[in-house]
Amino acid sequence: MEPKMDIAALQAFVAREFPQLGDDFLIETLTEEGVTVRLRVADRHLRPGGTVSGPSMFSLADVSVYLAILARIGPVALAVTTNCSIDFMRKPAAKADLICHTRLLKLGRVLAVGDVMIFSEGQTEPVARAGLTYSIPKSA
Amino acid sequence: MEPKMDIAALQAFVAREFPQLGDDFLIETLTEEGVTVRLRVADRHLRPGGTVSGPSMFSLADVSVYLAILARIGPVALAVTTNCSIDFMRKPAAKADLICHTRLLKLGRVLAVGDVMIFSEGQTEPVARAGLTYSIPKSA
Amino acid sequence: MEPKMDIAALQAFVAREFPQLGDDFLIETLTEEGVTVRLRVADRHLRPGGTVSGPSMFSLADVSVYLAILARIGPVALAVTTNCSIDFMRKPAAKADLICHTRLLKLGRVLAVGDVMIFSEGQTEPVARAGLTYSIPKSA
Amino acid sequence: MEPKMDIAALQAFVAREFPQLGDDFLIETLTEEGVTVRLRVADRHLRPGGTVSGPSMFSLADVSVYLAILARIGPVALAVTTNCSIDFMRKPAAKADLICHTRLLKLGRVLAVGDVMIFSEGQTEPVARAGLTYSIPKSA
Repeated sequence: MEPKMDIAALQAFVAREFPQLGDDFLIETLTEEGVTVRLRVADRHLRPGGTVSGPSMFSLADVSVYLAILARIGPVALAVTTNCSIDFMRKPAAKADLICHTRLLKLGRVLAVGDVMIFSEGQTEPVARAGLTYSIPKSA
Repeated sequence: MEPKMDIAALQAFVAREFPQLGDDFLIETLTEEGVTVRLRVADRHLRPGGTVSGPSMFSLADVSVYLAILARIGPVALAVTTNCSIDFMRKPAAKADLICHTRLLKLGRVLAVGDVMIFSEGQTEPVARAGLTYSIPKSA
Repeated sequence: MEPKMDIAALQAFVAREFPQLGDDFLIETLTEEGVTVRLRVADRHLRPGGTVSGPSMFSLADVSVYLAILARIGPVALAVTTNCSIDFMRKPAAKADLICHTRLLKLGRVLAVGDVMIFSEGQTEPVARAGLTYSIPKSA
Repeated sequence: MEPKMDIAALQAFVAREFPQLGDDFLIETLTEEGVTVRLRVADRHLRPGGTVSGPSMFSLADVSVYLAILARIGPVALAVTTNCSIDFMRKPAAKADLICHTRLLKLGRVLAVGDVMIFSEGQTEPVARAGLTYSIPKSA
C-alpha cells in the first residue's frame, strides 16, 4: 500500500502538532513496512550517568509507531496509544543518538499494532524493544 | 517490614539524583504496601488539547515504583527498569494533577515488581494502569 | 451498573461455549467491580515439580476477564483478547487451587481492560498479575 | 556463539521434561539468533469456530523462548518465565499449524529476553507477537 504522507509531510506534521518535541525526532526512512526514527539525544533526555532515560525511549517508541500509522492513514485522524509493553535490555551508549526501527504489524479498522526495536547508533545489540497498540477513531 | 527511607528522605533523594525532574513529583503517602505520588502537572507534561502526555504518565509510573523499591531497600542500590506494560484507558482531565497509587507486589533477590494505577485528581475512574519490573543489582 | 448475567448464567455459558475447559473454572463471586474465579487444579495444569503451568495461569486470567465483560454486556457478543501482559512473580503452591481476582477497569465502546491478581489458595502473596485488553465487536 | 544443544537434543529434552506436551511442538530450525517452532494443531488447541486458542499461542511463545535459551545455556538450568506481553492481532487460519519465529534479544547473567512472531502456516501476516522475559537461576 502506498503511504499517504511522505517523510517531509510527516516531519512537518510533528513540528506543527507537537511543538514541545522540538526537533528531537528525525525520520530517517519510510517504507511500506514502517519507519526508522532518530532521537537526537540532548541533555534533557539523559539520566545521571549520561544514558538516555526510560521516558525518552518510551517517547521515541510512541512517536515512531504514531508516525508509521499516520504515513498510512494520513494526517486526519487522532489515533491514541492504548497499550505499550517495553523491555529495556541494555544501557544505551553515552552521547549516542538512538535509532528506532518500527514495523506496523497490523492496521485494522479500530486497532493498529506496531513493533519497535531501539539501538544506540553504531551498536548491533538493541537497547530496548516494545509493542504498542493504537486505537484509531471512527472517522479515520 | 519497616521502610528504610521515609518520605522526606525519598524526596531529597529524587531532588539530588534526578535534578532534571525538578519538583514534578511529590510523594503523598508511604505505607508498607507502597507509595502514592502526585505529578504536579505543568505545561511541559501536556499534549495539544491540554491533557497529560503518555511519556509523562510513563515517567510517573516509573518513578513511583522506583520510590517504592528505594523505600524498602534504601538509597544504596541502583535498580533499573527492565519491563513496563502500561494501559492508557481514559484521557486525563485537563489542568488536573495526576495521582499514582503504587503497590510493590514483589521484592525479590534480583527482581522487584510494582503495580500502579493512575488517576486524574478528583476522578474515580483510572486513566492508566501499569506493571513494572525492576532489576536489583547484586550489591543491594 | 447491574450485571446482565449472574453466576449461574455465566457458568452455564462457559460450559456450553467452551466444553473443552470442562469444569476447570468455578466462578466464586460476581460484583459490580468484577469476578473471582477458581481454577480447580488438576494434573493437566501442572508442570514437572507439581506447580501450575504458565499457560494454565494465562488461561485463568483470560477466562476471568472474559467473564467479567460478559457479566456486563451479556452473552450476545464475541469479545476477543487483543493484548495480555502477565507477570509471574512466585511459584504457585503445590496441590493448591488458584484464585483469580479480576477488576474490569474499563468497558468502552470498542475496548475493555481488565486487571487480574492470582493467588494460590490460602496464600497472601500473589503468584501472578496481568492486564488484559479485549476488543468488543460492533454488535455488542 | 555456538549453540550448546542441537535440535535433536532440544526435542529430546522437551519430550522428557514436559511429557504432557506430547509431540505438540516441533523444532524446525535453530540458528544463532533463535529458533523456529511449529505447533502441530490438534483439537485440544482449538476454540469454538476452529481457531487456535489464546492459551495455546501463549504456550507456543513460552516454549519457543525457553528452547532458544536452552540451546544457548544447555539443559542444566531451570529458567522461569517472569513476564510475557502478547498481542493477538489476527484470527489464526482454521486447520493450519502455527509457526513461531523466535529471536533471543538478550541473554544476560540473570535475565533473558526473547521476541516471537507467530504465523498461521502459509500466511504472510502474523497472528500474534510477544516479548518474554526469563529469569535465569544462579547456577546457570
